[in-house]
Amino acid sequence: MAEGRGGPRLAKRAVALAGRRVGETAICSLDDRGDVLRYRGYDLAELAAHCGFEEVAYLLLYGALPTAAQLDRYQARLRGLRGLSEPLQELLRLLPGSAHPMEVLRSACSVAGSLAPEAAGHDPQGARKALDALLAGVPSQLIYWHHFHTRGQAIETASGDASIAIHFLHLLHGRPPPMAWARALEVSLILYAEHEFNASTFTARVIAGANSDLHSAICGAIGALRGDRHGGANEAALRLLLPYRDPDEAETDIRRRVAGRQRIPGFGHPVYRRRDPRSAIVLAQARILARQPRQRRLLEIAERIEGLMGELKGLFPNLDWYAALVYHFLEIPAPLFTPLFALARLSGWGAHILEQREEGRIIRPGADYTGPEPRPWVPLERRGP
Amino acid sequence: MAEGRGGPRLAKRAVALAGRRVGETAICSLDDRGDVLRYRGYDLAELAAHCGFEEVAYLLLYGALPTAAQLDRYQARLRGLRGLSEPLQELLRLLPGSAHPMEVLRSACSVAGSLAPEAAGHDPQGARKALDALLAGVPSQLIYWHHFHTRGQAIETASGDASIAIHFLHLLHGRPPPMAWARALEVSLILYAEHEFNASTFTARVIAGANSDLHSAICGAIGALRGDRHGGANEAALRLLLPYRDPDEAETDIRRRVAGRQRIPGFGHPVYRRRDPRSAIVLAQARILARQPRQRRLLEIAERIEGLMGELKGLFPNLDWYAALVYHFLEIPAPLFTPLFALARLSGWGAHILEQREEGRIIRPGADYTGPEPRPWVPLERRGP
Repeated sequence: MAEGRGGPRLAKRAVALAGRRVGETAICSLDDRGDVLRYRGYDLAELAAHCGFEEVAYLLLYGALPTAAQLDRYQARLRGLRGLSEPLQELLRLLPGSAHPMEVLRSACSVAGSLAPEAAGHDPQGARKALDALLAGVPSQLIYWHHFHTRGQAIETASGDASIAIHFLHLLHGRPPPMAWARALEVSLILYAEHEFNASTFTARVIAGANSDLHSAICGAIGALRGDRHGGANEAALRLLLPYRDPDEAETDIRRRVAGRQRIPGFGHPVYRRRDPRSAIVLAQARILARQPRQRRLLEIAERIEGLMGELKGLFPNLDWYAALVYHFLEIPAPLFTPLFALARLSGWGAHILEQREEGRIIRPGADYTGPEPRPWVPLERRGP
Repeated sequence: MAEGRGGPRLAKRAVALAGRRVGETAICSLDDRGDVLRYRGYDLAELAAHCGFEEVAYLLLYGALPTAAQLDRYQARLRGLRGLSEPLQELLRLLPGSAHPMEVLRSACSVAGSLAPEAAGHDPQGARKALDALLAGVPSQLIYWHHFHTRGQAIETASGDASIAIHFLHLLHGRPPPMAWARALEVSLILYAEHEFNASTFTARVIAGANSDLHSAICGAIGALRGDRHGGANEAALRLLLPYRDPDEAETDIRRRVAGRQRIPGFGHPVYRRRDPRSAIVLAQARILARQPRQRRLLEIAERIEGLMGELKGLFPNLDWYAALVYHFLEIPAPLFTPLFALARLSGWGAHILEQREEGRIIRPGADYTGPEPRPWVPLERRGP
């Protein structure tokens, strides 16, 4: 699921700090009914219907929708940052092909932080510049590593492709994507871009609160997103779906899993109680892409499981459920699903890091102690086995 | 300061979530008066007086003090893990000499997570094994990188030195350290090893709560610790101290800084109100090490500033203040101070990751929205500048 496991019946015991407001944000508003999801005041459904991903990233990072001229300049700047420096290529070659691509992003971000650190003083313009390089560089890093370790080929990543979505699909497949493919990826990136104090964003804010650098905060966020109670769920959702041959087989197996108290990835949410407002938007994209019989069958299977999970558990699909299908229809290998979530969320993380720096406070909670009573130290030779 | 800026007059506005208990822990207990600081029930003062660092790391990670046989095996295991694999050496060579060593640790930890990932399934034994490799590897990584970029020399890091503290100083200085030096470093590592829900540990717990891997959680923690409101303060404390020629010059300058509302690193704490119980212990080590006139002078300067800060601001020195002097007397370059804090805290981070995994919940708080009211989307061509 997009932000963690949970849902109406699980949320309370499965989510720590659920519903506890630990700070303020001007970036995103949502409610637990799933009726409201806004980025800086704009309805996410409207943004997904009308905007490109870079336009939404700009909104998140600069606080306002760009004018045509601002958007042109922003996209041109990002296009110019797609090449990979020699040491970064070296890093991507030395990372093993067995690595998870989220580890590749984590390492590439960490090393990029030393090769091209943000400007000293942590001013917002320097941070945005570093974020530009990350947003433009992530598709290049991922696909360079992917092709090097699957085909032994060190690809050129610089490109004049119009958008990040086109660049990603072009690099991955070695041919320009159909319009509908680029649009579907773009919509998913807009939906994944931001979601208030989710675990990875909160991680980035805790790191930024200690007055650390941007790359440290992003590395931490990538690490959190990788977990399968968070971003890792989109990959898990596809792995669940793919083996089913038809809806009946899926239904039998899901009933068995639910009876055995297994968690089903892609369902429920630590915040939402009734529905995830992003789910219907990404489902519409999955429907547009599903042309071949096997694709339409997979969609039927996913919808059957949706109905079943509502009936059996009162749970609803979150963004990851149908996003997994969209990415599969775009012929993206499953291990790259969570990295796409990370690429999108970079914009939200960046906005929250800027906001946390404005606030200027360290985040340092306390804990209830539940350990041993005070006990005297015992010399080594008198310790029992 | 050890855990952030703050202190009696600053804490409330300078620390988010201050005093709010967001979870449970059996690892560390402390109180805001600074009277109690215990690791798993043992008084830290006793541990610092009697134990080696590895003994305390074992206590944190396994929950009990080791027997003599357990400690022997543990130290032998750690000694066997000091060599650096070829790809890790390659990484350390490609990271620029201009990097901050905390970035080096962050990148080395991230890449190690791909070269030697923890066992699938995240079981505690696999995690402890990965932590062994990190505890043993950090001194090697740091000093390999340091010598390569300062002297162009790729050193051998495998060694039979008895302890981590001896290994670190031996590698750094190219000769075995005097006993008093190794002991002083060891005491500082014990004091730095663990401190409840500080910002870096909390970061590690948020990442682990998403069910991510150990290296992701440690990378995030390293990133948080780097911030100068957290671990980065020990380096900042030395940079402040070093230029003063005598206590009077220091007093004049500190009065000026305080009048100008500048923050003085190494003073105050987000948790403690009156004193940091670790400060006197590390000061005793600084006194043992201060032999030369310039060293004794620096100690006088630091003590004068301690008195002054109490008088002017009601603030007390935290662990970082005299730890900075200890490290300086050990001829450790200032950029390596925070990495030593990280090396020590690896043991506490590891214990908290294991504990968070036991708890098995995602940490997902909420936020108060303070942004723009709902507003309609505006087409690109109708947006004003």
